[in-house]
Amino acid sequence: MPLRSNRPDSCPLCLGSEEEVLWRDGRCRVIDVRHADYPGYLRVIWNEHVAEMTDLDADDCAHLWRVLLGTERVLRRLMSPDKVNLASLGNMVPHLHWHVIPRYRDDAHFPDAIWAPPRRRGPSPHAVVHPPATLAAALRAELGGSGATAFA
Amino acid sequence: MPLRSNRPDSCPLCLGSEEEVLWRDGRCRVIDVRHADYPGYLRVIWNEHVAEMTDLDADDCAHLWRVLLGTERVLRRLMSPDKVNLASLGNMVPHLHWHVIPRYRDDAHFPDAIWAPPRRRGPSPHAVVHPPATLAAALRAELGGSGATAFA
Repeated sequence: MPLRSNRPDSCPLCLGSEEEVLWRDGRCRVIDVRHADYPGYLRVIWNEHVAEMTDLDADDCAHLWRVLLGTERVLRRLMSPDKVNLASLGNMVPHLHWHVIPRYRDDAHFPDAIWAPPRRRGPSPHAVVHPPATLAAALRAELGGSGATAFA
Repeated sequence: MPLRSNRPDSCPLCLGSEEEVLWRDGRCRVIDVRHADYPGYLRVIWNEHVAEMTDLDADDCAHLWRVLLGTERVLRRLMSPDKVNLASLGNMVPHLHWHVIPRYRDDAHFPDAIWAPPRRRGPSPHAVVHPPATLAAALRAELGGSGATAFA
């Protein structure tokens, strides 16, 4: 049975409270994870409560890829990471969302995934920290639309 | 500086030896990772040595998404996992590839990522083990083409 334990009325990504939304449109949003070890770690969250990419129809799927790629492009441009990590896991919260993580050779886990035990203290000294307004403006320039409520 | 340490002449994904290829076309291939704890763990590998999704042009990108989604669809149909995990990390081997992992509530790491320390012994008793030929045939039916050399 696919995971359905998080009903929309208790799913944190359906509630979406206390999120630092950098960009949004009618279908999805990009938030700043505000991870102490990973500046620029963003999350792309589909608004509707579905679990898997293949639960989306073709048009929604293409839209989400477009936002995901645009987010990667913005992070590469602003932060010049050594690598970008993309992941849709959702084992804890089976509500479709993507982790978009700029990685550096000397960050807390490199070259492991950030879910592995850390190898050193983070963040990387090479990670450029941008204020949310800068990230929001870059996402708006890349993806169009009016952007986030807070930074529009 | 983006990761360029793995030159094509030493990159294991450029060499591609000892891979169990289940499906391929001119641009990418799907291989069986043969992970002891994760039956059905497949990897979608772009043939050309590029590091990031945003290094691909729009047509190649759409092609890779199509193969990735088709792979997810096949695994959901054949294995009914509780969740599918998709990840493009590439910190160790910066040659574009996707991990496609069927997850079960009682697998070795659930609900953590498979890169975290294990919580129990794997594989999940609910993970259905399919021979490579079955996976290859299902991928061929889903994605078209002549499939893998070994199982065509």
